[in-house]
Amino acid sequence: MLLIDADVHESFAGIRDLVPYLKEPYREWIERGAWRGFSQPFAYTSPGAGNRADVRNADGSASVSDYGVMRRQLLDTYNQTYAVLTGYFYPTMLKLQYGLSSALAAAYNDYVAEHWLAKDKRFIGSIQINARDPEAAAREIDRMAAHPQIKQVMLPVVDDIAYGHPMYRPIFEAAERHKLVIALHHTILAEGPFGMGLHYIERHTLLPTSMMAEVISLILNGVFDGYPSLRFIILEGGFSWLPHLMWRMDREYRQGRVEVPWVKKLPSQHMRERLRFSTQPAEDLTGDQWLKLIDLMGSDEFLVFSTDYPHFDFDDPRVSIPRSLPDDLQEKIFWKNGAALYGLEAPVQ
Amino acid sequence: MLLIDADVHESFAGIRDLVPYLKEPYREWIERGAWRGFSQPFAYTSPGAGNRADVRNADGSASVSDYGVMRRQLLDTYNQTYAVLTGYFYPTMLKLQYGLSSALAAAYNDYVAEHWLAKDKRFIGSIQINARDPEAAAREIDRMAAHPQIKQVMLPVVDDIAYGHPMYRPIFEAAERHKLVIALHHTILAEGPFGMGLHYIERHTLLPTSMMAEVISLILNGVFDGYPSLRFIILEGGFSWLPHLMWRMDREYRQGRVEVPWVKKLPSQHMRERLRFSTQPAEDLTGDQWLKLIDLMGSDEFLVFSTDYPHFDFDDPRVSIPRSLPDDLQEKIFWKNGAALYGLEAPVQ
Repeated sequence: MLLIDADVHESFAGIRDLVPYLKEPYREWIERGAWRGFSQPFAYTSPGAGNRADVRNADGSASVSDYGVMRRQLLDTYNQTYAVLTGYFYPTMLKLQYGLSSALAAAYNDYVAEHWLAKDKRFIGSIQINARDPEAAAREIDRMAAHPQIKQVMLPVVDDIAYGHPMYRPIFEAAERHKLVIALHHTILAEGPFGMGLHYIERHTLLPTSMMAEVISLILNGVFDGYPSLRFIILEGGFSWLPHLMWRMDREYRQGRVEVPWVKKLPSQHMRERLRFSTQPAEDLTGDQWLKLIDLMGSDEFLVFSTDYPHFDFDDPRVSIPRSLPDDLQEKIFWKNGAALYGLEAPVQ
Repeated sequence: MLLIDADVHESFAGIRDLVPYLKEPYREWIERGAWRGFSQPFAYTSPGAGNRADVRNADGSASVSDYGVMRRQLLDTYNQTYAVLTGYFYPTMLKLQYGLSSALAAAYNDYVAEHWLAKDKRFIGSIQINARDPEAAAREIDRMAAHPQIKQVMLPVVDDIAYGHPMYRPIFEAAERHKLVIALHHTILAEGPFGMGLHYIERHTLLPTSMMAEVISLILNGVFDGYPSLRFIILEGGFSWLPHLMWRMDREYRQGRVEVPWVKKLPSQHMRERLRFSTQPAEDLTGDQWLKLIDLMGSDEFLVFSTDYPHFDFDDPRVSIPRSLPDDLQEKIFWKNGAALYGLEAPVQ
């Protein structure tokens, strides 16, 4: 069976790996340790500290930067047709020094092109940006868009940006100009309505609320209407809340659309046409629950399979999607929905 | 058919109505206009400015304080067996001057007892508190709990309180001591993950996320385990997100419970046993969608009918719940689930 994995996190061994790709003065800043990279404000309680415990190099050290380990554990083990690289370094998290942030995004994109994309034709690439400087982000999208493996722009979900605000329009304009998908993925800054809560498990349980808030913001502020060929995918943000959000937004739209006259379609219609979701973390549902849920979504084209490799809550394609689902539905989740989104064809053998 | 309306908003004509019930020095403060009451930070775009346009006194002025209008438009029109008064004045919204806030809660409770509860045996009362001073809130609960019509404590959802934090335990202790239900209801301060958004329709669409965050906070910080006879109802926060939250929390619990060892049951089990939801705003679902959704919830005892009178998005019991639902399910939603929650019996005719 053909298989697209929509959420695979490549990384570097350390921030200094970006030094060869950085422009001055930022190269010198990182070289001398002026900034040491991001660190999450909580302890990961899983044995692999956020990653699968078995994602290791030969010497036992954690491996997130080794293509060979990923190839063996992921692409070859599951015979993946394509794996979409989504990064694990989101410069938008830097709230100060937007010049540094934009330079880091560019350096990371060049690092990924050389150390990951070039090594395997199965990789699909994403453009990292500094969303806090939307014009600079648009220039970075323009710079990277011609790469033949690059198909999307990563929009990192942080604690203080709802992307429906008009200031972010240059990002969407650039993505539409180059026919790139917009992918939303949380970062370690993402929060729920009252911040992160008091434990990591709370913060992790709250992540879907930040994705709901982004969808609400994008649709009600007219991004779907304003960029009619742009398509979106929610990565690692859950999907079983989708029936609720479609119903809720449609009710709100029917009763309150006078306030947002630029929204020209029922929100649920916008979603069915243009919004997709990666499956991981798939919840523990029976086949019957999957079918009821998809029926309530009103479309079997929403879901695109993903593993979230190498993270601790990895979804194995052999068990996370019930084998009892109809073959054509499985084919849509594992292949067709993702292939349609990214414009991919089955490789010639 | 017997009918409980779980969310009815009584109010006063103006903050000065509380003057006779206030203790000094706060009586004098309000009397001389030192504080003018709450005002929402957005414009209501509905014709009744937040209320049904037809909730009017004989002279055409807005009516939220007139029992006669409510009786005619609500209790008699729909032949309600019980109507649970939930207020529209939540002193917890005051972030300064906790003494004033607690005094206002007490004054409001006395006002409601005299001007509302005493007028109609069909009214069920709620205790308003200042949750920012949990010990004072517990004393207010102790003071009001003996009133024969009072069955619950209102826990107002604001922008900066997740009620799982240990500091709020005196409130839950007091509620459990008096066998009162804990009702969560948003206030005009409630927000989503990125604040209110940029329009009222966004903010209103985001309200369920604040309820999800409260449920996550309460369960994962041990409130359900610590107060095993306490029962909870989410008012006006939606319910179609419940399957998602149960599945998500169970997955998170299975993989991350080492961090919260005080949680002794699967979150979904806690919810099925102890958590209820009012129906308004019911989304626009077909009977078939209702049945699929309730099947995915795994229980038909979650839902308690509500109208949200007198607000603009009022749910008429004759149309908001499809008449095609099985009779026993309708009986549970309109009567049995609420009667079990509040310990109510059908009145002797």
